[in-house]
Amino acid sequence: MNYEILNKIKSPQDVKNLSNSQLTVLCEEIRDCIINTVSENGGHLAANLGSVELTVAVHRAFDSPQDAIIFDVGHQCYTHKLLTGRFEDFKNLRKENGLSGFMKPNESVHDPIITGHSSNSISAAYGIYRAKKLKGEDGSAVAIIGDGALTGGMAYEALNHAGDHNGNFIVILNDNEMSISQNVGGMSKSLTKMRNKARYHRFKFAFGRFLNHIPLVGHTIYKFFYRVKETFKSVVYKNNIFSAFGFNYLGPVDGHNIKDMESLFKIAKCYQRPTVIHVVTTKGKGYPLAEKKPNSYHGVSPFDVNEGVIPSKKITFSDVAGRTLCEMAENDEKICAVTAAMESGTGLTDFAEKFPDRFFDVGIAEQHAVTFTAGLAKGGMKPYFAVYSSFLQRAYDQIIHDCAIGKVPITLLIDRAGIVGEDGETHQGLFDVSYLTSIPNVTVYSPTYYDELIYTINLSSITDGVTAIRYPRGVEAPEHPNIDFKPDYTVLKGKNDRVIVTYGKLFSESFKAKQQNDDLSVIKLNKIYPLSDGLIDELKNYKQIDFYEETVKSGGIGEHLSARLHENGYIGSYNIHAVNNEFVPMSSTAAALKKIGLDYESMLRS
Amino acid sequence: MNYEILNKIKSPQDVKNLSNSQLTVLCEEIRDCIINTVSENGGHLAANLGSVELTVAVHRAFDSPQDAIIFDVGHQCYTHKLLTGRFEDFKNLRKENGLSGFMKPNESVHDPIITGHSSNSISAAYGIYRAKKLKGEDGSAVAIIGDGALTGGMAYEALNHAGDHNGNFIVILNDNEMSISQNVGGMSKSLTKMRNKARYHRFKFAFGRFLNHIPLVGHTIYKFFYRVKETFKSVVYKNNIFSAFGFNYLGPVDGHNIKDMESLFKIAKCYQRPTVIHVVTTKGKGYPLAEKKPNSYHGVSPFDVNEGVIPSKKITFSDVAGRTLCEMAENDEKICAVTAAMESGTGLTDFAEKFPDRFFDVGIAEQHAVTFTAGLAKGGMKPYFAVYSSFLQRAYDQIIHDCAIGKVPITLLIDRAGIVGEDGETHQGLFDVSYLTSIPNVTVYSPTYYDELIYTINLSSITDGVTAIRYPRGVEAPEHPNIDFKPDYTVLKGKNDRVIVTYGKLFSESFKAKQQNDDLSVIKLNKIYPLSDGLIDELKNYKQIDFYEETVKSGGIGEHLSARLHENGYIGSYNIHAVNNEFVPMSSTAAALKKIGLDYESMLRS
Repeated sequence: MNYEILNKIKSPQDVKNLSNSQLTVLCEEIRDCIINTVSENGGHLAANLGSVELTVAVHRAFDSPQDAIIFDVGHQCYTHKLLTGRFEDFKNLRKENGLSGFMKPNESVHDPIITGHSSNSISAAYGIYRAKKLKGEDGSAVAIIGDGALTGGMAYEALNHAGDHNGNFIVILNDNEMSISQNVGGMSKSLTKMRNKARYHRFKFAFGRFLNHIPLVGHTIYKFFYRVKETFKSVVYKNNIFSAFGFNYLGPVDGHNIKDMESLFKIAKCYQRPTVIHVVTTKGKGYPLAEKKPNSYHGVSPFDVNEGVIPSKKITFSDVAGRTLCEMAENDEKICAVTAAMESGTGLTDFAEKFPDRFFDVGIAEQHAVTFTAGLAKGGMKPYFAVYSSFLQRAYDQIIHDCAIGKVPITLLIDRAGIVGEDGETHQGLFDVSYLTSIPNVTVYSPTYYDELIYTINLSSITDGVTAIRYPRGVEAPEHPNIDFKPDYTVLKGKNDRVIVTYGKLFSESFKAKQQNDDLSVIKLNKIYPLSDGLIDELKNYKQIDFYEETVKSGGIGEHLSARLHENGYIGSYNIHAVNNEFVPMSSTAAALKKIGLDYESMLRS
Repeated sequence: MNYEILNKIKSPQDVKNLSNSQLTVLCEEIRDCIINTVSENGGHLAANLGSVELTVAVHRAFDSPQDAIIFDVGHQCYTHKLLTGRFEDFKNLRKENGLSGFMKPNESVHDPIITGHSSNSISAAYGIYRAKKLKGEDGSAVAIIGDGALTGGMAYEALNHAGDHNGNFIVILNDNEMSISQNVGGMSKSLTKMRNKARYHRFKFAFGRFLNHIPLVGHTIYKFFYRVKETFKSVVYKNNIFSAFGFNYLGPVDGHNIKDMESLFKIAKCYQRPTVIHVVTTKGKGYPLAEKKPNSYHGVSPFDVNEGVIPSKKITFSDVAGRTLCEMAENDEKICAVTAAMESGTGLTDFAEKFPDRFFDVGIAEQHAVTFTAGLAKGGMKPYFAVYSSFLQRAYDQIIHDCAIGKVPITLLIDRAGIVGEDGETHQGLFDVSYLTSIPNVTVYSPTYYDELIYTINLSSITDGVTAIRYPRGVEAPEHPNIDFKPDYTVLKGKNDRVIVTYGKLFSESFKAKQQNDDLSVIKLNKIYPLSDGLIDELKNYKQIDFYEETVKSGGIGEHLSARLHENGYIGSYNIHAVNNEFVPMSSTAAALKKIGLDYESMLRS
């Protein structure tokens, strides 16, 4: 495809001037461009395909950047990028120094905020909206949020706040009946009902006709019927979750009909009340394979467009964690697994199938997930909450308040810990070590290989208090040296006075370094916090200690160890190599490690 | 009062056997006991007075501990304590080693979890409920949550999850139309509508009578009317926020009528569906002064029962922060203030009155508060979010994701940083230093005196990125020595080789130590992170460094400094004195500091 129309779209203004037939072609071109680019670079596919017409309609009805437009999470912002002057750069989507897969203000004035985590769009858009009004500026703010993101509590906090103030603030609900996988929860069922309210419409029309033709049996009855009709109308059409928060509700409208959406958006612009427009879209629209299995086409690695995504046969850390839980659950009826809308991503698909009663997908709701997990433990079960490191940031308070203070025995399986690669800043798992180790009564493990992960997960089932087991995205290092694994730490003695201390994935880098220079000593931690007592005595044997960790330096294990070394009067040289007070942008994991100085070559140089 | 009946209540079972007239006396005794104890010990008054009958009815209808009963936040759990065998100990409420002001499992089997932070009760109760059912146990779980706590998003995450599963799980909404102060948000208005649905009732009865008497004009019309009636009923009575999440809804019921509530609770126990019971109570009930001004009687210090609470004339850090913002706002139209249901607690009452357009109370919704604040900044305002240290834990992810990555210029005014005293573990502000300094692009200040706080708040209005200013609960130290205040740090030189480094409130302890031994050197930090460059060079002048901070050691400034000293080859003695891997229980602040070793006497001994 040569993208005749898309080529000419330099700004949203250009979208406004297209004819109906040109719009149809534009949408085809956008879909083609998204499918081709994502099939080469990887990225979010199904949600972006589902929101092509929606985004075109948004840019026809609103005036970005005067109207601030925010796509929640950013899983659905590719069309927005293509329509806001980034078509040329789109081929570098998710590449180092290329376009981010999410909204990013330093890419374009049309991206008001950074996105990546779910359910925050209404809050940010509403803040921008109120600032605009305080400054007397024209324009509105529009948050476009999926039904999946509506399982996150923060969205309700924002609806509650914004619903209480009259003004032209707009929320577009992109309802595709899916979170990342099938959406969960009572709310999802309600939305289904609202989508199916065609029967209410039919009923309304029938009732209206009936009222218009009823013989006038008396003024009272007439008035009574009128009241019935009006009350009924107001109740049926306006009494839903959004109206409960004070929002005006419009819809549902077909999310693949640009004209219908455009009209409704323009009507919404006229209200001086906060308004929700309910748009119904099909995830994966226009790419039959993705329409059929939107789950499999949510976030994808590069794939062949004709063949479609072929499930990887590589076993990952997530798979091993899930499989281990399954094995434990076979023998122990108390084992439960909890996920926050990441069943597949955290390797729990088999568990969900085999133990449906003991599997809980709570939606994109990490706060609830942690406290619900604590409740399961309080009730006598042995629960595991499997979650990505960066998303668990949402539940810091719940880990402290609902788990650690009361030493509630739960296990956090922290997936995607460390550098995650192309998803960039918002998804790096670089904070969990700092935030978890700040909390008393939390024990943190960081296994390097699958067998260590299996061992540690089994260990956690008999441990008290909060246990956190963190492991990286993807697969274990190809070579698994035959080391003497110990639950706390393992020492690989060399001849000279220098020792490298590290843990998790980075051990394989340090092992490579040792292979190049066998005089080096290496200490590999498994339990990374609290620090094991023997460790300090062992370290006193070395004159130079280099600590390597794939996390922020501030509050990391390296700093904890520094303080302990000081306490114990260590007088040798001690240096920490970690991510130093910066956010790590997208790139391949290997490139990032090299840049930060965490690869084996840097270790050898030190 | 001699508490004739209350005296005999050893367990909830005893409440079940009382006659109506005895119940009336019991409630009087409970109110008397609560008023007297709180007037002597301080504590939460108005919410507890409002929930006396509610709690009695709960313990008559349910069987604790077989039915797990959780009072959200715990501002309303005093009656529960009195009915579950803790009457004798109640006089020691909120005293060191006495009864906690919140639920606490190690006090009683009737307290399933620790409470203190808002909006988590449904999550915990639902976890316990599902565990019970997995184990085939009898009994249910009941979360009792205020309408204020329903402004917290976590509650919706839990409603969404729990509403999707059939079973006898119960939520009691204690609706007193108040958060800590007047409740905010669209939802609050909805609840008011639901409370006032008497007119629907009247309408329903009228319509029902009408239908029963309508002449049979034909089968079709009859059927049509029947459908109208049924649809109307189902829509009017069941179509509310709770039903949207899949909950059955009962109520509203008078929260001071034990019999009515008991009946409704018993009906709820029969449903095999999750059920919300809407109970309407009066905050402060039975103590006229509190009924009149429930705001002033939410959490109180000791007071005279006859005179009532007399507002303290002492100026606090909160007052100074609020006053400073007011002064800045007079001259700068961009200054905004945000609070999460803590207008009075954070000293913003005057600001709210003087600048209503630029004041935002978002409800108990710290996540939304931070991102909304970021939105205001993105829109060009200069927003300040004033919040207690322990509550800001809820927004760790939002500070990272919505503020720090994009260097959004906001200021966090962190009140109640450090030891807070009688509220105990859940409210200590001991984590903010660790979690804030783990985040790149965040600058943290910790002023000691009011003038330093004023200076620093003014400074923050022209600073880029996220600025956090943390200050303690209460008043500044009585003596304010005339030191040469510098924005980064101040050195008070002594003769000997030992230096104490500290910041915030603890500086006054170190100054007392220096007054006793003038040879001591003291370095007082104001900007505590990132560490100022000159600091390391200054510290090289000393052979012994003792770092004191009123925060957890793990991830604190002391550890950051330790690492920097190692990097710079410092070979003297360095020790950190801080809260070491424990939660600090309730006691007076002075007693806690002494116990941890952060008072001036400990400093002298070191």
